[in-house]
Amino acid sequence: MKTFHIELPDLQIREALIDKINNLTKPKGSLGVLEELALQIGLIQQTLSPTLRHPHNILFAADHGIVEEGVSKSPKEITWQQLSNFLHGGAGVNFLCRQHGFKLVLVDAGVDYDLPYEKGIINCSVGRGTRSFLHAPAMSHEEMELCLERGAQMVDKAYADGCNVISFGEMGIGNTSPSSVWMHLFTGISLEQCVGAGSGLDSEGIRHKYNILKQAVDNYQGDGSARDKIAWFGGYEMVMAIGGMLRAAELKMLILVDGFIMTNCILAASRLHPEVLSYAIFGHQGDEAGHKLVLEALHARPLLNLGLRLGEGTGAVCAYPIIVSAVTMMNEMDNFAHAAITKYF
Amino acid sequence: MKTFHIELPDLQIREALIDKINNLTKPKGSLGVLEELALQIGLIQQTLSPTLRHPHNILFAADHGIVEEGVSKSPKEITWQQLSNFLHGGAGVNFLCRQHGFKLVLVDAGVDYDLPYEKGIINCSVGRGTRSFLHAPAMSHEEMELCLERGAQMVDKAYADGCNVISFGEMGIGNTSPSSVWMHLFTGISLEQCVGAGSGLDSEGIRHKYNILKQAVDNYQGDGSARDKIAWFGGYEMVMAIGGMLRAAELKMLILVDGFIMTNCILAASRLHPEVLSYAIFGHQGDEAGHKLVLEALHARPLLNLGLRLGEGTGAVCAYPIIVSAVTMMNEMDNFAHAAITKYF
Repeated sequence: MKTFHIELPDLQIREALIDKINNLTKPKGSLGVLEELALQIGLIQQTLSPTLRHPHNILFAADHGIVEEGVSKSPKEITWQQLSNFLHGGAGVNFLCRQHGFKLVLVDAGVDYDLPYEKGIINCSVGRGTRSFLHAPAMSHEEMELCLERGAQMVDKAYADGCNVISFGEMGIGNTSPSSVWMHLFTGISLEQCVGAGSGLDSEGIRHKYNILKQAVDNYQGDGSARDKIAWFGGYEMVMAIGGMLRAAELKMLILVDGFIMTNCILAASRLHPEVLSYAIFGHQGDEAGHKLVLEALHARPLLNLGLRLGEGTGAVCAYPIIVSAVTMMNEMDNFAHAAITKYF
Repeated sequence: MKTFHIELPDLQIREALIDKINNLTKPKGSLGVLEELALQIGLIQQTLSPTLRHPHNILFAADHGIVEEGVSKSPKEITWQQLSNFLHGGAGVNFLCRQHGFKLVLVDAGVDYDLPYEKGIINCSVGRGTRSFLHAPAMSHEEMELCLERGAQMVDKAYADGCNVISFGEMGIGNTSPSSVWMHLFTGISLEQCVGAGSGLDSEGIRHKYNILKQAVDNYQGDGSARDKIAWFGGYEMVMAIGGMLRAAELKMLILVDGFIMTNCILAASRLHPEVLSYAIFGHQGDEAGHKLVLEALHARPLLNLGLRLGEGTGAVCAYPIIVSAVTMMNEMDNFAHAAITKYF
């Protein structure tokens, strides 16, 4: 069984960080969230002069058996089509990665298609999509372990390339369904509040999706452990992201959390290792019903709220300049003593 | 009297813009605010392929007579000290301007100090600070006209340098007071809801500030026109920003609006020329009580909400990468027909 050893940041440096932040030439607290981010990043990196190096967006793609039950408006083939489109550089995640200097890593976690691996998609496929979890588990425990392991390996590779800040994206038609079920099971929020429109369902479609997911939850016959719920209802790309997040926390990297799906992945990850949350920065609150609620359950305050609902890591990557601002504040802002300014309020 | 001739953007290109945005490879609407920004910028620039060139942050500084009445916790000398500090590159606005490629222009609109103009601060001074508006106008109409004129000239200079996107910042201890009065007079929102903590007042301090401003409003004896209210209660740096905003709209530039003070400046500007609002992008909603309300009164949805309350243009500059993202989306994202992807939802 794949396990991770995640340490909480040592709090000894906390006072020195707060002292540095409070003595920058601005009224105390007046840079708001930038100050909170600087404290978090300083704690993670254990330094008063944090740095961001070689940001990566690792995008895991996979198909979902639950799509057979009519829970998504978009056809399954969008998964492989979009993954191929990412190769050509013309998708939403591409321009955002270019804009902010992210290396985009495309990973087949389990897409139901013969993908062009020779063109740069990394083959980590665990299977041709999960099974429908309406009556039986979406994946076996062996598959889940493989996902955790391979997700961790992708992060090892980024780390070896000098990366210390990492975002995870996803592409997988149908993956708001497993996300909603995890959210329900791991927060206790009613399933109804966890289910939303996905990529464009109308109210009748949402009702059908809810009914399917309700049945699936009622049919659950596993052992009730977090691991078992992750395997029973999860998607390959989602469990791979969990493995990546846990490994990133183990390596003391900053984890940028994208939208609804990735928020539920770090929620699930936190049910295995709660310490992972100390390394998480939440990029964006999307419009998917339930995203606000799951963020609240995690006591997370996302950096952006721009109505994005594209996935792919776009919400996390789009928020990156704010993280850069927080780090730059620590390294480039003057302090009151040096600038010879009256400290003000 | 300084007047401006601001045109509303021609709507003929609107359909073509919407068509282009809807055919990018993403579910319709899934890039949320980026799509709304792209439409606005496309309309302003009258093109399907917008560009952003040489962003400037013009920072106007001035002192305020109303500070004599004890409305601010910070001493007046902070104004010149911080303006000098901006010269050395160590302030909040400096690192943000460097991060996002903004040229920072420092303008003395009326600071009560002998500033080192030879070091790069531009002398547009209208006087050694305004008078207290408790019993009489803060400035004469002649001074107001001079401010509008000089603010416009600063924008002309940026425009001549190739700039088409401009933010305005301010430094002026006490300037939340005139802002609150303008907000009250130009929106009709009760003065109590317009008055906040500024750079750090406690509840007793806020009460005193409210009482002073209430008396000042009661003592108003002008002709009731927008121009007269702007002169009576305004600050030199604020009226210069109004002149800059109106000139920028005349030149069809994008105007990035910063926090509470600049939001009230564009509010006041819109009472002279409502068309200016078509050119405005609101960067940030700050924590100052009343900012949310004035944004709502303007039907504005700010891009960020990061708890910043520093002024200087920091909220506007910090939001810039999102505007870049919107423009990059238009120029770099592929469309469904070209990418040969099934259009999805």
